[in-house]
Amino acid sequence: MALPKDYAGQRCSLSRALEIVGERWTLLILRDAFFGVRRFGDFAAHLGVPRAVLTDRLETLRAAGVLAETPGSHGYSEYVLTDKGVRLWPVVRDLTSWGDDYYSAKGPRRIFQHAQDAGMLAPDGTCTICSSVVPPSDLLVLPGPGYDEPSDDFVSKTLTTAHRLLEPIRGH
Amino acid sequence: MALPKDYAGQRCSLSRALEIVGERWTLLILRDAFFGVRRFGDFAAHLGVPRAVLTDRLETLRAAGVLAETPGSHGYSEYVLTDKGVRLWPVVRDLTSWGDDYYSAKGPRRIFQHAQDAGMLAPDGTCTICSSVVPPSDLLVLPGPGYDEPSDDFVSKTLTTAHRLLEPIRGH
Repeated sequence: MALPKDYAGQRCSLSRALEIVGERWTLLILRDAFFGVRRFGDFAAHLGVPRAVLTDRLETLRAAGVLAETPGSHGYSEYVLTDKGVRLWPVVRDLTSWGDDYYSAKGPRRIFQHAQDAGMLAPDGTCTICSSVVPPSDLLVLPGPGYDEPSDDFVSKTLTTAHRLLEPIRGH
Repeated sequence: MALPKDYAGQRCSLSRALEIVGERWTLLILRDAFFGVRRFGDFAAHLGVPRAVLTDRLETLRAAGVLAETPGSHGYSEYVLTDKGVRLWPVVRDLTSWGDDYYSAKGPRRIFQHAQDAGMLAPDGTCTICSSVVPPSDLLVLPGPGYDEPSDDFVSKTLTTAHRLLEPIRGH
């Protein structure tokens, strides 16, 4: 946060993208938003991100139009991916896939399945049965072979069984 | 650099990936490596990244096996993408494409073309002519409609005309 967000002298699209999503924790927050997390307390409990950092990142994402803040029930604000935010799915998917390949000896912790035909998602984002590029709203996330004991928070427990991406997870 | 690289409590593949590539400047350095930049001085001149930061990032990438350090000619070390590094191409491509869509009013600054059939690269990484997913070594990078005046450094000047990804650019 003491670091500047901009990349002095850089004006390319990648540096602009990194000004929005390149800060620490931001892609993990967005990954959780794809899982369906919407509330501050649920992001905080699932990620263990310091609350001041989470506040800062959610505001950056809201200001950039990646997340929309909406009034939820019981007085909790909710942060929901916009179309612009959903367009970041390939980035989350590709980085996760790369991490699975090189840092998860027992295989992916989570796997993704095309809801329509039960095909598994290939690393390039296509369904292994119908070969189409599957949008996140048509994907189920399930525990994979590298899955270990779930944490105790509501989001982790929800994700121990199949859950459709973007469908809300609300822990409180 | 004062910030810890790890994400406390997180053990997923995405957090592991971000420990390697999630630091400031790292994805810009990798993008330049895909362009063919190999030498410290060329990264520094093209990116304008502080030299201490560049030193730190190159060492992180070397230690993680994303870049290999090799003795180049004239006593300059060269940093070359390993297979593990090349596997990050979709991340660089997706983030650049997202930035193009939302932050480049005149269109992409750079466009990518399949060398074999001159098809343009679609945002999902496929060739618009042959529909195959094109590996970076088969792509040419060219100035796009959003391209503006090149900077004065050798890398920028090299990239004013078509250049095949991963083919070395050596400015000195």
